[in-house]
Amino acid sequence: VNSETNRHALLEAFPVVISLPVQWGDQDAFGHVNNTIPFRWFESARIAYSQRIGLFGLFQAEQVGPILAAASCNYRRQVTFPDTIHVGIRVVRIGRTSLAMEQSAVSEEQNAVVAKGASTSVVFDYGANQKLAVPASIRRAIEKLEGRPFELP
Amino acid sequence: VNSETNRHALLEAFPVVISLPVQWGDQDAFGHVNNTIPFRWFESARIAYSQRIGLFGLFQAEQVGPILAAASCNYRRQVTFPDTIHVGIRVVRIGRTSLAMEQSAVSEEQNAVVAKGASTSVVFDYGANQKLAVPASIRRAIEKLEGRPFELP
Amino acid sequence: VNSETNRHALLEAFPVVISLPVQWGDQDAFGHVNNTIPFRWFESARIAYSQRIGLFGLFQAEQVGPILAAASCNYRRQVTFPDTIHVGIRVVRIGRTSLAMEQSAVSEEQNAVVAKGASTSVVFDYGANQKLAVPASIRRAIEKLEGRPFELP
Amino acid sequence: VNSETNRHALLEAFPVVISLPVQWGDQDAFGHVNNTIPFRWFESARIAYSQRIGLFGLFQAEQVGPILAAASCNYRRQVTFPDTIHVGIRVVRIGRTSLAMEQSAVSEEQNAVVAKGASTSVVFDYGANQKLAVPASIRRAIEKLEGRPFELP
Repeated sequence: VNSETNRHALLEAFPVVISLPVQWGDQDAFGHVNNTIPFRWFESARIAYSQRIGLFGLFQAEQVGPILAAASCNYRRQVTFPDTIHVGIRVVRIGRTSLAMEQSAVSEEQNAVVAKGASTSVVFDYGANQKLAVPASIRRAIEKLEGRPFELP
Repeated sequence: VNSETNRHALLEAFPVVISLPVQWGDQDAFGHVNNTIPFRWFESARIAYSQRIGLFGLFQAEQVGPILAAASCNYRRQVTFPDTIHVGIRVVRIGRTSLAMEQSAVSEEQNAVVAKGASTSVVFDYGANQKLAVPASIRRAIEKLEGRPFELP
Repeated sequence: VNSETNRHALLEAFPVVISLPVQWGDQDAFGHVNNTIPFRWFESARIAYSQRIGLFGLFQAEQVGPILAAASCNYRRQVTFPDTIHVGIRVVRIGRTSLAMEQSAVSEEQNAVVAKGASTSVVFDYGANQKLAVPASIRRAIEKLEGRPFELP
Repeated sequence: VNSETNRHALLEAFPVVISLPVQWGDQDAFGHVNNTIPFRWFESARIAYSQRIGLFGLFQAEQVGPILAAASCNYRRQVTFPDTIHVGIRVVRIGRTSLAMEQSAVSEEQNAVVAKGASTSVVFDYGANQKLAVPASIRRAIEKLEGRPFELP
């Protein structure tokens, strides 16, 4: 229970949290989770967040969706199988056409942050092949989910 | 020939360049190469560089090898199958225990940079589970490969 | 509840069952889960089974572990994100040095079997680089887990 | 040259051959190429074959393409980085709606077959979500590429 309390504390700044099992095959020849895997975790977290704000549905309806412009990861601790990773995600800035996000990955086994991520996604019209302004409905959904207003770009 | 000339110009700042085919399965449901794939390219480039400076052999002999502390990617252009990617890599700073590197991925089809990467690796003793100072032999091998001296940390 | 009942029926022949979320990035450019992903599920199921019978621990202790000799998959239905996959696994034959296994992957969304797998693993001494007879302790653990005796090879 | 001669002999029964580098990250915690990777090789070979017979273009034009019904692999030898894999592929049977194929993966380092694959693909109309008879143009293209007639189903 204490470790659950701590995990919630580590993730309380994030309105969306997903949980993913570490698979044995996520490990590479160094015997720990390969460096590309946290980027898969962060992608899954972005998708979950997009579902919550209605951005994921837009893609299926209108071919408008996020496209990744930049991503980074700070690797804090080695992760090994077996484990479960809890990934928190939040929006930290809404630009004219972009969303800046932060992710934090917490290991259940280590009860600690194992990786921190940052990313910038651009709202993209895959049909017209061009950037779009962040739709007002998406901005409002983010502000509601984050529980705070965001500065206009 | 012109496009080859241009590609060489795009990669001439990088002493090590590897070439990798885009596989159809590298593409995700957006129909372009998934965002985790450039991190695989950059990893392969780091391994190739490590082989050139003798750092890869150290791991096999003494369990001393690079561990990734941070990685980032700027996605410049969408990549699709079929294509061949040429990845250049260089060391930009040698710290006490770390190497900072930059990577550039050039698409043969687009004849342009499609992704730029940066990473920080730490020299790590996997047996003793601790950081090590960059060995003098590795520093010399980097300076020889890069053709310039590096400031001491 | 009905669908849970049905899922249990679909998996009741399997003494070990694991559950894995479908990640968005498991999908390829055809918009469904890529054909390599069920093999990752089956691998994770084999590892879980190996943990249950003490074979996974042998590898960490003595570098003795399973090596895959053959694997196959029948793809029954397309799988898409979001979904959760429940993978059942059982041993169907114990050879002198090998274990034949079957896997069945059930989609929570479709409430149906989406992929059937079969595999043959050989007990391998990674240190000595050679096959080993299936240890008697492993045979007994399998018989106990499966609740039936197996013919001697 | 002798090893090239031998490699050509190993692959001469296959009208389409692709070459892929082993990447360091293809290896798992057992220190060899993960069991899912040959399925990625075989997929890339199927795509290359599909391009040669005009089936790949059909998908882009009409959403008609192959869907995988079954796949299997016999793992003959462990593969490690660095290496280059040459994958040969051929059609062995043309059914009413299906193509049966065989793949063979040859390691340049080991100068030997490391994995044998078999697969069944079905011609699928992704728009209408149903199987299609193998188009006559595709049958003719296969017969031309393989240099022999195929029995009617």
